[in-house]
Parts: sequence; structure tokens; C-alpha cells
Amino acid sequence: GVKFDPKEHQHQRYNPLTDRWVLVSAHRMTRPWAGQKESVSEQQVVRSDPQNPLCPGNTRANGQVNPDYESTFVFENDFPALQPDAPDPPQGSDGDSLFQSKAARGKCQVMCFHPWSDITLPLMRQDEVIKVIDKWAELVEELGATYPWVQIFENKGATMGCSNPHPHCQVWASSFLPNEAVVSGRSQKAYYQQHQQQLLLRYAEQEANRQERVVVQSSDWLAVVPYWATWPYQTMLLPRRRHILRLTDLTPEERRDLADVMRRLLTKYDNLFQVSFPYSMGWHGAPTGPHLSGGVDHWQLHAHYYPPLLRSASVRKFMVGYEMLAQEQRDLTPEQAAERLRNVPDEHYRNRKK
Amino acid sequence: GVKFDPKEHQHQRYNPLTDRWVLVSAHRMTRPWAGQKESVSEQQVVRSDPQNPLCPGNTRANGQVNPDYESTFVFENDFPALQPDAPDPPQGSDGDSLFQSKAARGKCQVMCFHPWSDITLPLMRQDEVIKVIDKWAELVEELGATYPWVQIFENKGATMGCSNPHPHCQVWASSFLPNEAVVSGRSQKAYYQQHQQQLLLRYAEQEANRQERVVVQSSDWLAVVPYWATWPYQTMLLPRRRHILRLTDLTPEERRDLADVMRRLLTKYDNLFQVSFPYSMGWHGAPTGPHLSGGVDHWQLHAHYYPPLLRSASVRKFMVGYEMLAQEQRDLTPEQAAERLRNVPDEHYRNRKK
Ligand SMILES: O=P(O)(O)O[C@H]1O[C@H](CO)[C@@H](O)[C@H](O)[C@H]1O
Ligand SMILES: O=P(O)(O)O[C@H]1O[C@H](CO)[C@@H](O)[C@H](O)[C@H]1O
Repeated sequence: GVKFDPKEHQHQRYNPLTDRWVLVSAHRMTRPWAGQKESVSEQQVVRSDPQNPLCPGNTRANGQVNPDYESTFVFENDFPALQPDAPDPPQGSDGDSLFQSKAARGKCQVMCFHPWSDITLPLMRQDEVIKVIDKWAELVEELGATYPWVQIFENKGATMGCSNPHPHCQVWASSFLPNEAVVSGRSQKAYYQQHQQQLLLRYAEQEANRQERVVVQSSDWLAVVPYWATWPYQTMLLPRRRHILRLTDLTPEERRDLADVMRRLLTKYDNLFQVSFPYSMGWHGAPTGPHLSGGVDHWQLHAHYYPPLLRSASVRKFMVGYEMLAQEQRDLTPEQAAERLRNVPDEHYRNRKK
Repeated sequence: GVKFDPKEHQHQRYNPLTDRWVLVSAHRMTRPWAGQKESVSEQQVVRSDPQNPLCPGNTRANGQVNPDYESTFVFENDFPALQPDAPDPPQGSDGDSLFQSKAARGKCQVMCFHPWSDITLPLMRQDEVIKVIDKWAELVEELGATYPWVQIFENKGATMGCSNPHPHCQVWASSFLPNEAVVSGRSQKAYYQQHQQQLLLRYAEQEANRQERVVVQSSDWLAVVPYWATWPYQTMLLPRRRHILRLTDLTPEERRDLADVMRRLLTKYDNLFQVSFPYSMGWHGAPTGPHLSGGVDHWQLHAHYYPPLLRSASVRKFMVGYEMLAQEQRDLTPEQAAERLRNVPDEHYRNRKK
């Protein structure tokens, strides 16, 4: 028979965090594309726009005036999906298990990374990125004191629904464990019970040995295209040396190292198609609030990056149709993606152009 | 305390098919939108474009010439994600449970609905739509004779990654049960074992009684915005009178009725924002191949419609950030969505304009 070649022959790979499979059909990259193109006009973002509610000194929708902040700046989302005081939906009145609802309370915050609108994380100085990481840890500490889950996430680029070019992320703390946390926690727990080791610590060890999916590495961190990646250039950021529950547990050295690895990874992303690379990213760590007292040793801190671009700055992967109704499908192997990212220069294209 | 109002107070709802919760935060609709707008220039599609590989009489990428078809037309996808003869990935050589792969084989077909490029299902005649349904059933019969899952899906509109305006869907048959089939089947089975009734038959009965989420109904079919909908105007098409495993089991009356309900639902969609409404849709029914012999009585045939638009023809919902990393979130209640769809006219805006 024909010898199996992952670049030629479609196959499935297992995601041990989500308990789902992905269909890898790398031979499809050659098909012509007559569909939607993303607009990539790298619009000249101005450093400070008097109309932008995220800039220092400007007035927001609710009339509040931003301070003249010089590093990070956090404020309550003016249109929060989660509020601290929503009443409980009525219980039991209905009694049909097909119509179940439950309470949702929380807080939504916005965090600016930098006073300038025309800068992004890979172009910021290392000490500036360390301040972002420190602030993330502070917010996990603060909101996690009571809320069981604190979701830090960044939507970057218009393609990812981001409506403001100013470098920022969001922090949504909830009174419940969201779906992804439940599923990932369940998988990590089952693995830990069976192997007496954290799934993601073991995984980082393995990827460090194998190297073929590693994009960027340092003494404390590893950025890999996961073996089970669904998005074309999806990556995972993993601590490689020790068991770490949450951002709050990172040492100053680990934060410095993380800032460096993040800047290098994001520079690779931007250099791939010479465009400010769109993505959604976020941190997953052990639950907080009532879970601070224990029972969550199976968790290992990590970040997911989900970038949509596939072939170029203007052609994205659409997770539609078959993906929504049947199963995620990808058009290049994770190893191919990692290799392409490794092969782009380490210096940001914007700096090289100068 | 404050009285709970689902339109004002965020809460969660349970999806019994996927075992996931959705966050409903209807109070967020008022926030300003400065993000990406979809292009909605209803491009004048020409009826027959000599360059379009889907039109009758034209030549496709592989050199084959389409017949002068007059109703539906099915051909093998020229860039298939699934091929019948891919070899198995090597097994066991690795032995690490974090690096699991398995075989994937199958067939990908494309099915044109009509010889004209400038027509869509809601604008087709009822007898033409019946031919589409008949062909769907034929393909389930044919491919399902051996393959355990036959996924019929339609990506409509550039927003949904559709690269060809010609009215068509795809049919991907696979040697495995895809994730969504596994999860939905598991939920339907657990319900059936506990209640001795099909989950979706019971659900259709309940929604027919309650009416508040019904968009279109007939004697055999119900189109509802599910209680647990994630996409703003998501709907589910359900047989309401009897247990039906697959499209192949539909009587001629049920097909006629389905054609009518589909045309009415899709007309509602188009009329909502006066645009040819983008969506991904697909059919789920009992598995086929080895499952034809039984053990799948918990399954009930149904279709899912996932349309992305939120506020207007140009402002979509982005399932990004919090949705990808934590939990799906919606910005209007399913009851509000159903009401808006019920309230638009029954006649297609294109016909009214004449
Ligand atoms: O098959 P097409 O139309 O070329 O491609 C479209 O549908 C496929 C199946 O849902 C997706 O995998 C692609 O991302 C999408 O662009
Ligand atoms: O909060 P924003 O930036 O207004 O909105 C964006 O992020 C949210 C959280 O991921 C999503 O629910 C919205 O669909 C998206 O447009």
C-alpha cells in the first residue's frame, strides 16, 4: 500500500483538552480561492485620537474621563455582558429539563496595554510587556478573590470583531465556570488521576523533546502549534519547567521570560504575512474564588492563540459549514505551520523597513 | 429584590444537545459599533457566467464539462477534504496518549440546487425545492449505504466562507462519526434512555405548545429559534408529528410540506434585513452505514441554521474572544429573535419590489 504522509493524506488528530478530533486535510491548500478577502489596508492608526474612548485623557460613553495613564489602564466595560447584581432566573416553575436556565453574574473590565493607539505588544519594550503581565496577575488576584473564573482575552483586528485599534484586552470574571473551563478542567483532571502528572506539563516536556511543533522557546516557556491545532496558525503558550496554577504564581523571572517569548511569538505572527496579525487569545489557569482552597492541582496555566488567517493577509480560514455542523477541519499540518513560523525572521518587519 | 426579566438580566441557558450553556446578555444591544462591517452590495449575480464552474455546460478545474442540467446536479468536489482511499496513520508507534491520530476516509460532493446562478431557495418554486429535498434523500441513501455519517451542509454568502454565488450545498460522507454527531447522539441517547421518548420530538411538542419561539409552522414541521440558540437568529427545523430517523424516511407529503416551510423560513430571513441572508445550515439525522441495522432510535431528524448577522445587513455577531475561550454569548433573547422574524412580511422583498 501507499505509505502514509500527513501532508498528503487526510487523517484525524485528538485534542486531549476538549475531547474532540480535528480533520487534517493538508492536500487542500492548492484549491483556488474566489471567496471573501479581508481588507488589510494597514490603516494608519494615529497615536492619539480625541474620539477614541480608550486614549489617555479622553471621555468615555458614560461621561467618565480617562486619567493621563502612562502604562496600563483598567476600567469597567461600559457595555458589560456580565453585571454583579443580576437577579436569578425563576427556578423549577417550568420543570421541563429541556428548558433550563441558571444565574450569571460577574464583572467585565477593559485593560489598555499602553497609552499609544499605534503600538502593539510585539512592538512594545520588554519592560512595558512585563507591566501588562503584572497587571493581568493583579486582576486575577483581585477578581479571583471571589469569582471562580477570571477570563483574560484579547480580540485583535477587525477580522476578530475588535472594534477599537487601541492595544487592549478584556477581563470578564464570572460567578460560574464557563463551558471551556469545565471541559478543559475535566480532561486535565482525568489525566492527572490516571498519570499523577499534569497533562500540560507532560505535553510541554514532550513537545520540547520533539521540537517539530515548537515556534519559540526559552528556559521557562514554550510556544507550540499544538498537535491538535484547529486554526491554521494556532499556538499554545506553556510553562515548561514547573507546575504553575495561575498567572499570580509566576515569579519575576518567569514574567520577564514570558514577556520576551510573547514578543518573539507575536513578531513571528506579524512577519508571516507582513501584517498586524489578527487573533483572539486568552489565558486558562486553575479556577479561583472557592477553588483557591484546593482540589485543582490538575490545572496548568497556559494561553491559547487563535488566529484566523490561512493563506495570506487577506485570505482567512472560515470555520463554517462542515466545521460548525460536523467537525473542525484544517488545511495544513500543524508541523507545516510551525515550520513556516520558525522560518520567518525574528526582527519585526516594521523595524526592518526603517 | 428586582424581578427577573430575561431581556434585561443576563442569565445562562442549557443546550441539551451539546451539554453546553449559553450566556444571554440582551441588555448589550445598545452599545455602539465601530467594528468591521460586512459588504452587502447585493452584487448583481448574472444568471449564467461562462467562468463559473457550477453553471450548466461549463468546464470545471479538472477539465470535466457539466451537463446542461435543468434541476439539481451533483458532482465530486474537485478539492475534497475527504478521499476514499487515504492510508491509515501509523498506530501505536508513538504510544503517547497526547499524540493520537486515526484514519479519515470519505467522499465530498457538491450539489447545485438550480441551473441559474441568480436564484436562491426562497425564490425557487415549491416543486423545485422538493427536487432538492429528494436529491438530498437520494445522496443519504447512496453514500449512507456504507459511510456512517453523511453531512449535508450549505454555506451561503461570502460572510460564511462561500466562494461561489451559484445556489449549492455540499455533501461530505465520512468513515467516522464527526464530533458534533458524537456529542448530539450521546445527548439524545441519554434522554431517550431516561424518558423513553426522543428528546427532539418532545422538544417540538413543547415548542408547539408554547409558541413564543416559533417562526414558521405547518402540519408536519416547526421552525423555532431554540431556547438555547447561540447565533442571534439561529433556528432549528423539526418534524413535529412523528419519529423520523433520516431524510430518506420522509413521505412525499412531508417533503412537500418541508419545501414550503423552508421557503417561508428563508423568506423571513431575507426580509429581516432586506438582504440575501447568509448562513451555514445542515441536516442531522441517525447515523448510517453500520448503524442502518439499528440502535439509533434515540435520533430524530432535524436541520440547524446558523446565520451570523446581528443588527443589520452589515453588522454581524463575532464568536471570538470570550466565546472561543470561555462561553458562547448572545445579545438578544431567543424570544426576541423569534418575534422579529415572525413580524417581517411573508412575501419576499424582491417580489414585493417589482
Ligand atoms: O468547500 P469550500 O466551499 O471551498 O470551503 C468552505 O467550506 C468548507 C466546509 O465547511 C470549509 O472548510 C472552508 O473553510 C470554507 O471556506
Ligand atoms: O466586547 P466587544 O469588543 O465590544 O465585542 C467583541 O468581543 C466580545 C467578547 O468576545 C464578543 O461577544 C463580541 O461579539 C465581539 O464583537
